[in-house]
Amino acid sequence: MKAFMDRDFLLNSETAKHLFHDYAEDLPIYDYHCHISPKEIYENIHYDNITQVWLYGDHYKWRIMRAVGIDEKYITGDGSDYEKFLSYARALSQAIGNPLYHWSHLELKRYFGIEEPLNEESAPRIWEQANAKLKDLSCRNLIEMSNVALIATTDDPVDDLEYHRLIAEEGSMKAKVVPAFRPDRLVEITKPDFAQYIAKLGEVAGFPIDSLAALKQAIHYRVEYFHLRGSRISDHGLDYAPYEEATEEQVEIILKKALNGQTLTSKERDQYRTMMLLILSREYASHDWAMQLHLAAIRNLNSDLFGKLGPDVGNDAILDVHLAENLSRLLDAMNRQGSLPKTILYSLNPTHNYMLLTVGGCFAGGIPGKIQLGSAWWFNDHINGMREQLKTVADVGVLGQFIGMLTDSRSFLSYFRHEYFRRILCNLIGEWVENGEYPQDEKALETIVKGICYNNAVRYFGIEL
Amino acid sequence: MKAFMDRDFLLNSETAKHLFHDYAEDLPIYDYHCHISPKEIYENIHYDNITQVWLYGDHYKWRIMRAVGIDEKYITGDGSDYEKFLSYARALSQAIGNPLYHWSHLELKRYFGIEEPLNEESAPRIWEQANAKLKDLSCRNLIEMSNVALIATTDDPVDDLEYHRLIAEEGSMKAKVVPAFRPDRLVEITKPDFAQYIAKLGEVAGFPIDSLAALKQAIHYRVEYFHLRGSRISDHGLDYAPYEEATEEQVEIILKKALNGQTLTSKERDQYRTMMLLILSREYASHDWAMQLHLAAIRNLNSDLFGKLGPDVGNDAILDVHLAENLSRLLDAMNRQGSLPKTILYSLNPTHNYMLLTVGGCFAGGIPGKIQLGSAWWFNDHINGMREQLKTVADVGVLGQFIGMLTDSRSFLSYFRHEYFRRILCNLIGEWVENGEYPQDEKALETIVKGICYNNAVRYFGIEL
Amino acid sequence: MKAFMDRDFLLNSETAKHLFHDYAEDLPIYDYHCHISPKEIYENIHYDNITQVWLYGDHYKWRIMRAVGIDEKYITGDGSDYEKFLSYARALSQAIGNPLYHWSHLELKRYFGIEEPLNEESAPRIWEQANAKLKDLSCRNLIEMSNVALIATTDDPVDDLEYHRLIAEEGSMKAKVVPAFRPDRLVEITKPDFAQYIAKLGEVAGFPIDSLAALKQAIHYRVEYFHLRGSRISDHGLDYAPYEEATEEQVEIILKKALNGQTLTSKERDQYRTMMLLILSREYASHDWAMQLHLAAIRNLNSDLFGKLGPDVGNDAILDVHLAENLSRLLDAMNRQGSLPKTILYSLNPTHNYMLLTVGGCFAGGIPGKIQLGSAWWFNDHINGMREQLKTVADVGVLGQFIGMLTDSRSFLSYFRHEYFRRILCNLIGEWVENGEYPQDEKALETIVKGICYNNAVRYFGIEL
Repeated sequence: MKAFMDRDFLLNSETAKHLFHDYAEDLPIYDYHCHISPKEIYENIHYDNITQVWLYGDHYKWRIMRAVGIDEKYITGDGSDYEKFLSYARALSQAIGNPLYHWSHLELKRYFGIEEPLNEESAPRIWEQANAKLKDLSCRNLIEMSNVALIATTDDPVDDLEYHRLIAEEGSMKAKVVPAFRPDRLVEITKPDFAQYIAKLGEVAGFPIDSLAALKQAIHYRVEYFHLRGSRISDHGLDYAPYEEATEEQVEIILKKALNGQTLTSKERDQYRTMMLLILSREYASHDWAMQLHLAAIRNLNSDLFGKLGPDVGNDAILDVHLAENLSRLLDAMNRQGSLPKTILYSLNPTHNYMLLTVGGCFAGGIPGKIQLGSAWWFNDHINGMREQLKTVADVGVLGQFIGMLTDSRSFLSYFRHEYFRRILCNLIGEWVENGEYPQDEKALETIVKGICYNNAVRYFGIEL
Repeated sequence: MKAFMDRDFLLNSETAKHLFHDYAEDLPIYDYHCHISPKEIYENIHYDNITQVWLYGDHYKWRIMRAVGIDEKYITGDGSDYEKFLSYARALSQAIGNPLYHWSHLELKRYFGIEEPLNEESAPRIWEQANAKLKDLSCRNLIEMSNVALIATTDDPVDDLEYHRLIAEEGSMKAKVVPAFRPDRLVEITKPDFAQYIAKLGEVAGFPIDSLAALKQAIHYRVEYFHLRGSRISDHGLDYAPYEEATEEQVEIILKKALNGQTLTSKERDQYRTMMLLILSREYASHDWAMQLHLAAIRNLNSDLFGKLGPDVGNDAILDVHLAENLSRLLDAMNRQGSLPKTILYSLNPTHNYMLLTVGGCFAGGIPGKIQLGSAWWFNDHINGMREQLKTVADVGVLGQFIGMLTDSRSFLSYFRHEYFRRILCNLIGEWVENGEYPQDEKALETIVKGICYNNAVRYFGIEL
Repeated sequence: MKAFMDRDFLLNSETAKHLFHDYAEDLPIYDYHCHISPKEIYENIHYDNITQVWLYGDHYKWRIMRAVGIDEKYITGDGSDYEKFLSYARALSQAIGNPLYHWSHLELKRYFGIEEPLNEESAPRIWEQANAKLKDLSCRNLIEMSNVALIATTDDPVDDLEYHRLIAEEGSMKAKVVPAFRPDRLVEITKPDFAQYIAKLGEVAGFPIDSLAALKQAIHYRVEYFHLRGSRISDHGLDYAPYEEATEEQVEIILKKALNGQTLTSKERDQYRTMMLLILSREYASHDWAMQLHLAAIRNLNSDLFGKLGPDVGNDAILDVHLAENLSRLLDAMNRQGSLPKTILYSLNPTHNYMLLTVGGCFAGGIPGKIQLGSAWWFNDHINGMREQLKTVADVGVLGQFIGMLTDSRSFLSYFRHEYFRRILCNLIGEWVENGEYPQDEKALETIVKGICYNNAVRYFGIEL
């Protein structure tokens, strides 16, 4: 019987412990995809209590609170921060096996020095202890405590990246903070505010966007601008992989229809989306950026909840959809035009993993680890999901090339998800070595473990630290 | 080396043994979904030999007999009961790893006191021993021996529930026997006997069903009638989740076409099915019933076998189909009209599990555990399937809210599938505790284990015992 | 800590060791599906160096070399054989957990007596040792060393099977070498060279094929010819399972359109393909052949790579596609016309496994193990994939009927994949026995293990050895 989440948490062999403690544990964190606010970093915000830093905005936690039947008042409503904390404690103790159980306790241990399990009985004590500790913890302290080397935020092409500039100029942070380019609003032509968005993009670019040529020019300018501000990463959220061929003339007409508020067919939508992805990939490839594709999410399912709270409130799910045919055509089209960038493929549906890796593997070559299966994403970010992702990469790819973990988080407390990942990784590799499936070759094992935890990402993204 | 299926079968740690033997083992069985016959219960039928109670009607067993090449004569044909038993024994010993191997031996042990493995050599002995024992075993004895608290049968809306009334009046059974409402024939408008069925429903309701309004009224009456007879549960079998919007006027026309024997388009079929599900959900919600949706089965594949033996003969399979979009629209439509009942989602395709849970999670709230991922169903009802279902619920939901196991069986010998489930559950939780992934918090563990095995279902369905 | 790939590699219990060493290890190899060249066997080719026998033509290895960024020059290009070997050594040491890691080392051990792990440091030594050893190793020596009882190659219906005749006449090989019938070019009516192919088939058959009747006659002749040359196995590669009904008259028209170079609709394509499969199945059934269906592969994704290197170069992937409905209709149509042959279903997409087994199970009967889920294929041919396949068969089928492993390989060094499979099988069964899930019944275990490793395939295919 191991003690609850002790020093050797999830490390079930001597080799696993050695790999984690000697190679993985002390490496810096390279967080190449997250959703934290550069403004909050710049302003170095403080928190009055643990609910503010822990429960505000964390829709993972909201979902388990709803699952146990807690009233929305104590989740996102006007319940007091203390009531919300108590409500979460009540939900959490039932969430045995859930990653939130481990994340929450890792965070309580690492940031607040709290060792006892959180439940209804301990919650009042922990509320006091955590809040006392929070007095000395700003968001920058939290980042510093986490040994973060790089943070790549998620930013809209029209963003002025002002806070990135200010953070860089101010110069006091140990962690490098860079933007990442997320042009979903530019790609999603059927969204109601598309025309408005393109107008905004025109303003930022300095000229009206009334043609495909102008749009391409604006995209080019914004990629250049992001590049200057340190970005080397882009990111796309897509329900399915679009692939519909069209000429530039056809897409020009589609664009104008959308700008005039006309309704598009789903074929037209995909013709536009396909061409946008091709245009954007050319920019990414020519700037040596990596492109992330996040696939197979379905969002805002509960229209009542969406009406009340808007997006990103725990109202999203895994989509079951076919990807292989279109995705391979899309990657092939990029490749044929000589502009397939380094690409990281994520699907929210874990049944896609083997398929994605084998599709991606057809486009490998030239750059080490060029096409990656992204780390277990969102609803897959748990022990089983991470083990499966790692085993899938090992089974049909080269695990030693994997660029590893990211937080994908909106919280400054989530860096210990990297620790969680590293423990799972070292445990898996330890199993293989102890089971005679890989030699006890210290040099090779050190290279592989340090590579996956940190070095591969540093090399892959090529951002100066 | 553990002995074959001993006291600690499937319990691989001290914590697992403790959880099972001290918390789970002696709890009553709450069997909220099965297909046994209330008539047989009322008449308290007896059996001449083990083949009658064990092999008649059990298409799980028929499938493994067919797989080893046994002639249909000795499966469903006119072979003698003894020959059929011998044939099953021969098939079973090759079915290593199959749940039938464990179920069959659990049943031989628990009901017949037979400890030796069944194979061709032991079969003649076991035939004698089991048949001797059967002399004292009626179906009610079997239920009694199994410590059953509740049995919810599966009943058609037109059923008069006479045997439920008689069982209740007679009053001697320890187990409560309630009906459950399964309106598939009412929903499946393109089945050849639909018009005939609706005529029958009209007879039972007391007025001709010649309009949507009349149909709604009849549904209301039948739900009321089932409610009076103790039903709190409904159940739907669906290949895929239909979702096609339509006005009442459109559905009225579709209904009349079907009643006149006209062919419907698949869109019309789904418009009708969607509206029926919306109408039914309103009844379920207003009566505080739980709604079960059984999805992704494909039935009667082998038309030759279907022609000879009819439905439910081991001629069904897992369907690969997309569910997320339609299912989420359907649940959302129920929710928008204020009538999303407590819902249990089952898919026969295990690749749907993460998807279903994340879709369901968007509609959680208010009622603890309102939307459930149903226990591993049919072809998933084995160690791997149950572990995966439990881990999936833990990974993206709150396992402590799970309402647990059901037999889904046509046999009076299958209650020990609950024991099998409980062992698997306790073993999994034991693993987590022993591995330091959950604290050794006796109070919390007792609540979780007893909840999943029994208490959660009692609370969820709210049926007075 | 177990030593790297020692005598008890992958055997993690005493029972597993016993089952493997006492029952499985020394059985001959029955390789019922592979892609090796009968010409090379007849000519008993020799190799100048390990690269020729190990890396030429092995696209599994090419994929991991591309994944680590090795230039195509050192994969399929004009790099020297030594450079290619070094490149592979560099890639391999990063491919921890990949089956190539184990296959490569098994092959180095078993054929070359090399015990040290291959990496950049050891590669020059191993190059020398392996090449020295290769002087005494022809392809027939390799087959002999592997204790092969049967090799079924993969052959086109127009093939004259001359090398099969010569091998048989020459008579010195211990292994029986038989052809297998792979009529993909005959089925794939929309391929550009279809008309040309049919002309070739006409030549071989001895009459022009200008009608469906003539095509049927030619098929009949070629099946007869293959049968005389020892074939008892056919094989189809299909992206998805086609099922479109059509009359012979309609298919006659479709055939003529294709022979005239006219474009077909996808419905016409599937009408033709469906009828071809029905016609072929009749031949297979009447000759008591087994039919293999390989489903859900998507090929030649990277058009640049395809343009440069052609097919079968590591440019293929897993397809996500729905199969259940069409596949069950196809099998049912064969069954209704009284000609469903013994059938082995493979899907490249592992998410199909439970579905395939349950669909297949509806058509079981008569012949023991008539419908099989094929051994973990291609991208699934690794520890996890094989364990999952075996567990799936056990969960919803009868594992004792499984016909086991095949190499599916283009290499004479891959027979030890059977050893790998047998270790995984014995380990899994050992787990069950040690965990009390199956009795320690030596007779039953010996029958099951020897059956799956060898005896079941011998009985199933009925080829005289």
